[in-house]
Amino acid sequence: MDVGFVGLGAMGTPMAERLLQAGHAVRAWNRSPPALDGLLAKGALPSQSPRDAFAGEAALTMLADDAAVRAVILEQDVLAHAPEGLVHVVCATLSVEFAKELEEVHRHHGVAYVAAPVVGRPQAAAAGELNVLAAGDPEAIRVVQPLLDAFARRTWTLGDEPHKAKIAINFLIAAAIESMAEALALAEGHAVDPARLMEVVTGTLFAAPAYKTYGDLILARKFQPPGFKVTHGLKDVKLALAAGEQAHVPMSFAGILRDNLLDAMAHGGLDQDWSALAGVAFRRAGQTQEP
Amino acid sequence: MDVGFVGLGAMGTPMAERLLQAGHAVRAWNRSPPALDGLLAKGALPSQSPRDAFAGEAALTMLADDAAVRAVILEQDVLAHAPEGLVHVVCATLSVEFAKELEEVHRHHGVAYVAAPVVGRPQAAAAGELNVLAAGDPEAIRVVQPLLDAFARRTWTLGDEPHKAKIAINFLIAAAIESMAEALALAEGHAVDPARLMEVVTGTLFAAPAYKTYGDLILARKFQPPGFKVTHGLKDVKLALAAGEQAHVPMSFAGILRDNLLDAMAHGGLDQDWSALAGVAFRRAGQTQEP
Amino acid sequence: MDVGFVGLGAMGTPMAERLLQAGHAVRAWNRSPPALDGLLAKGALPSQSPRDAFAGEAALTMLADDAAVRAVILEQDVLAHAPEGLVHVVCATLSVEFAKELEEVHRHHGVAYVAAPVVGRPQAAAAGELNVLAAGDPEAIRVVQPLLDAFARRTWTLGDEPHKAKIAINFLIAAAIESMAEALALAEGHAVDPARLMEVVTGTLFAAPAYKTYGDLILARKFQPPGFKVTHGLKDVKLALAAGEQAHVPMSFAGILRDNLLDAMAHGGLDQDWSALAGVAFRRAGQTQEP
Amino acid sequence: MDVGFVGLGAMGTPMAERLLQAGHAVRAWNRSPPALDGLLAKGALPSQSPRDAFAGEAALTMLADDAAVRAVILEQDVLAHAPEGLVHVVCATLSVEFAKELEEVHRHHGVAYVAAPVVGRPQAAAAGELNVLAAGDPEAIRVVQPLLDAFARRTWTLGDEPHKAKIAINFLIAAAIESMAEALALAEGHAVDPARLMEVVTGTLFAAPAYKTYGDLILARKFQPPGFKVTHGLKDVKLALAAGEQAHVPMSFAGILRDNLLDAMAHGGLDQDWSALAGVAFRRAGQTQEP
Repeated sequence: MDVGFVGLGAMGTPMAERLLQAGHAVRAWNRSPPALDGLLAKGALPSQSPRDAFAGEAALTMLADDAAVRAVILEQDVLAHAPEGLVHVVCATLSVEFAKELEEVHRHHGVAYVAAPVVGRPQAAAAGELNVLAAGDPEAIRVVQPLLDAFARRTWTLGDEPHKAKIAINFLIAAAIESMAEALALAEGHAVDPARLMEVVTGTLFAAPAYKTYGDLILARKFQPPGFKVTHGLKDVKLALAAGEQAHVPMSFAGILRDNLLDAMAHGGLDQDWSALAGVAFRRAGQTQEP
Repeated sequence: MDVGFVGLGAMGTPMAERLLQAGHAVRAWNRSPPALDGLLAKGALPSQSPRDAFAGEAALTMLADDAAVRAVILEQDVLAHAPEGLVHVVCATLSVEFAKELEEVHRHHGVAYVAAPVVGRPQAAAAGELNVLAAGDPEAIRVVQPLLDAFARRTWTLGDEPHKAKIAINFLIAAAIESMAEALALAEGHAVDPARLMEVVTGTLFAAPAYKTYGDLILARKFQPPGFKVTHGLKDVKLALAAGEQAHVPMSFAGILRDNLLDAMAHGGLDQDWSALAGVAFRRAGQTQEP
Repeated sequence: MDVGFVGLGAMGTPMAERLLQAGHAVRAWNRSPPALDGLLAKGALPSQSPRDAFAGEAALTMLADDAAVRAVILEQDVLAHAPEGLVHVVCATLSVEFAKELEEVHRHHGVAYVAAPVVGRPQAAAAGELNVLAAGDPEAIRVVQPLLDAFARRTWTLGDEPHKAKIAINFLIAAAIESMAEALALAEGHAVDPARLMEVVTGTLFAAPAYKTYGDLILARKFQPPGFKVTHGLKDVKLALAAGEQAHVPMSFAGILRDNLLDAMAHGGLDQDWSALAGVAFRRAGQTQEP
Repeated sequence: MDVGFVGLGAMGTPMAERLLQAGHAVRAWNRSPPALDGLLAKGALPSQSPRDAFAGEAALTMLADDAAVRAVILEQDVLAHAPEGLVHVVCATLSVEFAKELEEVHRHHGVAYVAAPVVGRPQAAAAGELNVLAAGDPEAIRVVQPLLDAFARRTWTLGDEPHKAKIAINFLIAAAIESMAEALALAEGHAVDPARLMEVVTGTLFAAPAYKTYGDLILARKFQPPGFKVTHGLKDVKLALAAGEQAHVPMSFAGILRDNLLDAMAHGGLDQDWSALAGVAFRRAGQTQEP
């Protein structure tokens, strides 16, 4: 297919590479052009603007948050100029309100809209092992399914608002990181071998990717480079808190996560992975941050 | 082997049954005798006292907490009367201090001591799928290994203080329950299908027994009968908090868990499973507690 | 003076009455006109629109939040039509960002702007016992000082951003309410006479209006009518959390306050006073909500 | 009167000095004798043992906690040797359980027992400005009233268990410290003058000793020498948590206080005043700890 890709950061780049490998033509655009170099070398076509990227059969956007989608797509009036039949696949995790607004704007411009937040880190993207939570017109999803299949293990449909499910899942990941962080600070404080503890944990009740992936990062105190930044983690925890607020749902764990992500940011964590929550736990306990 | 079994509650009973099925002779004792009836019908031998049960080659105790072990074993001077060579396998989760005291008392009386807290719920015990965290004299562990194999999928060794690891693991389970509870209250508040959400969660990053088992209980709001009681959960969270205190490790999630378990207890949760943490989350959000 | 007053809710009404009593001419406007009846009977002049109210020497606005100020003042282009020399006194507690925006808009239109969030409840307003945190051009403050003196015990200047101080003070009040709520739930649970306890508390280390006022409301479980609504309390706690976020300041107490205010809202608290935080504490502990 | 005084730490010393100044004969004993030198120079009589101190008409004990009272009074069998008619005044803050046990032991030995936890810091003791929460046989209280009057501004009676009230009050103090700490970290993060903010706070709604005393310590970041140690603060917060547990009262603020006091202890706070909670807030926000 002839597909545009807007937003080539840590996640977007391996996703676009998978599209190229699967034989699709990829029109690439990124706010900061140098990030495109690697992708162009692999065969992507440079676009001069988001509108340029939205000129084929489909366009994927993997942007950071509500504000980035607003700035790149809405304020540059990209949808008004999209060719008939183009399907826009939005992979970012958005707020509940903005997701609604975005849907309406697409309807207004007659552009097919597929919400498709992805679950997984850059390595999973590179391996074609992401999970996609898709919603939208079934025909539109059918059209872009080959694109999703290029980087995803599976596409899940969850009613019409996958962003809410994505927000819940990202909250669960953050909570699992914090849980491991506290458990490992406890182990450290009592001279229990943390690697052996995690071996038991992920060998028994917690034999799951979230615990294995983040357990390894925490054990290695490898908070850089970021697969998913502390700042993005804070954004998503705030989306959970805001969604909770709308429905009068107290979320005590989310409140703690917010505080600890801020603590990380106050201690050099702006460019760290959100597994740096463990760095906060170790520092608070007076423990070393060295691996 | 000729083995005593003291403490035949929700966990002890299926463990003892597995020993019988494996061909061992089981001397059974329980504080409240009626609980023994089923086991005796399956071939266990009744004991008149804990001392009676400590008369064979080994004895397992599956008691609730420090206080129960003190009352049943230490205060009745059971160890002083144990036959030479008997190995005592302690399956309860104990506090860091009491575990040390218990080890010394055994040394004093020349009774081999194996700390063997178990990970898993009654159903896992009945299926021989528990995980055992064992510590003690390697020769003693070797002797009782066939007994452990009767109910455990695997025996893990973690240095000399498995109670600390067990405390950390139970904290992780409680934190996972609370995480799911908050995520599902959020889903409920936004009309996201909770069963479908959990299908995605346990089909992707959280494909692990802890999330599947407790996710099912929460979705069904099935907080009774208890596999592990709210009160035992509180005991274990308090062990984590106390261990944290000793090593100056703040544990914010554990503090929240403490509060929410108390909330459950204040609302009829004394005899509920600790998955009732979800009942607290639903009630706080003004949501129904009905399945 | 000839002064407009926009926003005649629980706080605005007694403030405007104090202006009338002090001999000022008051042009009154409120979104829902019936709320004006009492004030008009006492001599206020009805205004047909906010612009109408902004036709004298000064205008005070006591609106709920950023959104209300935006809707009533900015979107109705009130400032562009204000007479030369009019001083606008903004009494609401605003977010840090909106306060900045508002200052710029005033500068653009050449209207003098005094930020003057007030500390105190309706009864304090009626008694002329509010405290005002004022900022702005000293000459403009000098002009409106007689107006502030009509309802305030004292005007405090705190640099150029009194909203931040006001946010901090409202956080302190909310935290004091929650602290008393937890302490009194503890007393209740142990059959300690709560009234006697509060007598000691407010007779010794906590002999201060915040503890006396809210202690009395909590002891009487008098959460209605609201002097300051749960929903306004949540707004202000969120302003504190947002300000904390900007400066990477974790605020654990504020996070707890957020959760408990949501719990109140999920249990009929939308129209209660924020002292209903105590109702949450009592309910969580399974205690009666009756006085 | 002829009065013994056991426990001459930061609080006990000024209390005993006030007794001397009021003309009483003071038999002084302390676990570490050098602490007595100053007091002896002022006229106190040295005692060789706690029993020695318990040889007059009354004896006051100002010991750190349950364990210290157990070690010094119960295990040394002091009460069995007390002369007839002696009244024992216990000034420490004790756990609910131990307070009961202590009452029974006194009854058994026929020694009059007055529970008299004191509210206030060393400076207040030196100025005779403490508040005493007294309980016990009214006749016994009448007998020792002149002693209490030597160091207290007022004696409050609160039913038969003043320890519970004292625990609640100390929780309120800790919560006020943490509240100010978070508010001042917020102010610091936004360049609001913290001293000016506290001037408004303690000049208006929070014009109370707790806010003035601790506000000053926090502004000066003067966490040493300790008037009340972080470790004693943790003890009292734990007493509140334990009392809450008995009555199924969640205490979210107390949980946060526990964590933050542990954080202080992990960062050199073992010998600091519990106002060091503010040091934790500043450090978490990446702010300077220097005054």
